[in-house]
Amino acid sequence: MAAHIVTSFDEDLGQINQLIHDMGDLAQLMVTDATRALFDNDAALAQRVVSEDAIMDARQRELDERAITIIALRQPMAQDLRIVVGAIRMAAELERIGDLAKNIAKRVNAVSEGATPKSLSHSIDVMAKLVMNQISEAVSAYEARDEKRLETLRLDDQEIDVQYTSIFRELLTYMMEDPRNITACTHLLFCAKNLERIGDHVTNIAENAYYISTGRQLPLNRPKSDETTVQDPA
Amino acid sequence: MAAHIVTSFDEDLGQINQLIHDMGDLAQLMVTDATRALFDNDAALAQRVVSEDAIMDARQRELDERAITIIALRQPMAQDLRIVVGAIRMAAELERIGDLAKNIAKRVNAVSEGATPKSLSHSIDVMAKLVMNQISEAVSAYEARDEKRLETLRLDDQEIDVQYTSIFRELLTYMMEDPRNITACTHLLFCAKNLERIGDHVTNIAENAYYISTGRQLPLNRPKSDETTVQDPA
Repeated sequence: MAAHIVTSFDEDLGQINQLIHDMGDLAQLMVTDATRALFDNDAALAQRVVSEDAIMDARQRELDERAITIIALRQPMAQDLRIVVGAIRMAAELERIGDLAKNIAKRVNAVSEGATPKSLSHSIDVMAKLVMNQISEAVSAYEARDEKRLETLRLDDQEIDVQYTSIFRELLTYMMEDPRNITACTHLLFCAKNLERIGDHVTNIAENAYYISTGRQLPLNRPKSDETTVQDPA
Repeated sequence: MAAHIVTSFDEDLGQINQLIHDMGDLAQLMVTDATRALFDNDAALAQRVVSEDAIMDARQRELDERAITIIALRQPMAQDLRIVVGAIRMAAELERIGDLAKNIAKRVNAVSEGATPKSLSHSIDVMAKLVMNQISEAVSAYEARDEKRLETLRLDDQEIDVQYTSIFRELLTYMMEDPRNITACTHLLFCAKNLERIGDHVTNIAENAYYISTGRQLPLNRPKSDETTVQDPA
């Protein structure tokens, strides 16, 4: 009987982990699609991101309900409980990544009205690729319960922040050069900011996964993000 | 013995609810301080918001740890379990409101370099007041378990979104008029966007509180926010 309960709990956890895995894949896909829609001015692809976000929301609700049912019926303790509570948090982070990707997709129309300079699309593309790698690495390091990789992830977020700061400066110069660029550049600025925020959510996922594996929180002070508020750009 | 356990659980919940209440007060204070710092160009006040955010983070961790302990030791069921899991989510939303207020505070320096036109400060101030009322109403409707007020809150978020869209348009015109305004206006744009996002987090709090009271989720489709991505502003 005890063995039966244990097995069922493992099965429950397996389903939760599968949902996290799927949500991670979906988050990456949404970032890829949203960025492509932005540069190819592809309204249909942008629309697909919006419907992917509905799937993401549904997955999160499903995970939440499963997790709460597990807590209620199986009353897990110690690490098992951490995994279940951690999964709820992780799903919330992934859902927000989906929201941010959707927000990028919704700007496709507004951005298309201006001409995006090549060097700028390149910079944003580099940033998007960094972000996608981070999402995939976060989910995979969580699945491997690899504490070292989780700590590294948090540090790698700085690379995204540096890239964001440089895009911010670049966008300001385009706006100053020609006021007709202002509307499109403002929307691109929010797109870049969304990518930077996705990086922050990945950091949260890493911190949370670290807590699940070790029962300890990573220290509060993490390297901070978004230099544009501190060093005022030209 | 049973009575003893019940009482202790109520005490535990009381502490959790007190933490939510304190975090709500702190969130309002942070928004007030950040907005005042922005308009009075008050670097010391901005610095206070940064330290308030550290308190907010510590409160969230305290609540998380208490909630997990309650789940592990008391194994609450049904509504009690919803309250505890709901409190974890609510604290996460309040913590993010704190982050957004801190982000406004960190832009004080960058904004002070340009001159903010009076009408613009007025619009942002109106938006900040709407947001502060929403935060206080959300926590109070949660405490009263008032489903009607929670539903209304979600609708009221539209008012904040309308205000944001108008500020967005206003800021673009200032940028187009004089390129020297661009840097400051860009930071103000992020400040306004942060207020709009705080409104979204209040909506999440209302949805979550509704779930705690009723066990049902509010329908998925809520009136959507940030019109600037759809109707492209002039």
